[in-house]
Amino acid sequence: MALTTEQRVHRAAVKLFAAKGFHGTGIRDLAQAAGISSASLYHYMGTKEDLLVGIMRECLDRLLLAARQTLDTMDEPADPADALSALVTLHVMAHAAQPDETRVVDNEVSALSRPARRRIVGLRDEYEDIWVTTIAKGVAAGVFDAPEPAVTRLALLEMCTGVARWYSPRGPLPLDRLAARYAQLALRMLGSPSPPGGKAAERAREVAAQVWRIRP
Amino acid sequence: MALTTEQRVHRAAVKLFAAKGFHGTGIRDLAQAAGISSASLYHYMGTKEDLLVGIMRECLDRLLLAARQTLDTMDEPADPADALSALVTLHVMAHAAQPDETRVVDNEVSALSRPARRRIVGLRDEYEDIWVTTIAKGVAAGVFDAPEPAVTRLALLEMCTGVARWYSPRGPLPLDRLAARYAQLALRMLGSPSPPGGKAAERAREVAAQVWRIRP
Repeated sequence: MALTTEQRVHRAAVKLFAAKGFHGTGIRDLAQAAGISSASLYHYMGTKEDLLVGIMRECLDRLLLAARQTLDTMDEPADPADALSALVTLHVMAHAAQPDETRVVDNEVSALSRPARRRIVGLRDEYEDIWVTTIAKGVAAGVFDAPEPAVTRLALLEMCTGVARWYSPRGPLPLDRLAARYAQLALRMLGSPSPPGGKAAERAREVAAQVWRIRP
Repeated sequence: MALTTEQRVHRAAVKLFAAKGFHGTGIRDLAQAAGISSASLYHYMGTKEDLLVGIMRECLDRLLLAARQTLDTMDEPADPADALSALVTLHVMAHAAQPDETRVVDNEVSALSRPARRRIVGLRDEYEDIWVTTIAKGVAAGVFDAPEPAVTRLALLEMCTGVARWYSPRGPLPLDRLAARYAQLALRMLGSPSPPGGKAAERAREVAAQVWRIRP
């Protein structure tokens, strides 16, 4: 199926912003990569910042959706170790499947104007709150040991986000094994005696496959 | 002491490359930030890529120097858990003390031309080899459990590198406590029963204070 002009522009923007940065990408680079004129570009997409906000929104919306679909639809509340395995699985799979998109989200927040930044940081906070709650539940239940939970959360998130920088689907490690390995590392960081896996982690793999169209 | 023109240009470049990316920074931005003309800039610093290579070299040279000064000058060979604590301490302190410099190193390798990239990636590999060896020694000694040592190493490095993205010296957490917390997380990831700390980790704090001029 042929891509629409909007889709072509969106893809070109993701690629260019990830490779050259938002400030390093000109309107003319974008138009050229999408095969249209600068005037049409503006007609289809508005400003360069509108494009950036669109990419970030979509990326964060998907992460939020995936986390909620995984954790909220469980019949019974997942145990904290299982829920954390699920969050790690989703975050790793998202960053491995969409390295360019996530790189733009992670690197370009400072390029946003104040109102746009507030919206995007709000979405990011909403997503990170799910991690905050999951870690707090585990600490309260006595299955996690995190003397400074915020430090542990940031360490976990940066570790999983970093996958976007080095993982290659052409490498020797299949994505589900990578995600399982990271879930193990995460539970160890929290001093959890549970092995990774469980119903929520399994559901996370299904949701990730759907949301980011990852082939099994 | 007043800064030399070279130092002013170097600082301006670090700041601009970190904030706007290499491609997003023009020669004129650099000259203006350093308070000189574009022609003088070229005279003092050569091309924009020369500046980038200089920043990356200096940053990686310091990391390498610090790792060697810490591990090679120990009277007796450090045990692997202590050596890993030391590497984590150095890496965390470097990234917290020089968030802009390390961000440039981590984000802009793809902006380098092929010969420069080979040199810089060579330095980075030299540095990462110290981590490879330390992890391998721990696995061989039976004190580390890392079924896929390369995955564990990359997870560790990304976790510690991420400090540059969120740590603020104005926050509530002193740098040495952050480093100690990260060393604990790292040893947990490796399934090590040892507590973090030891002679090498202590030496790492001294070396870091010297190399990155961190106030105790």
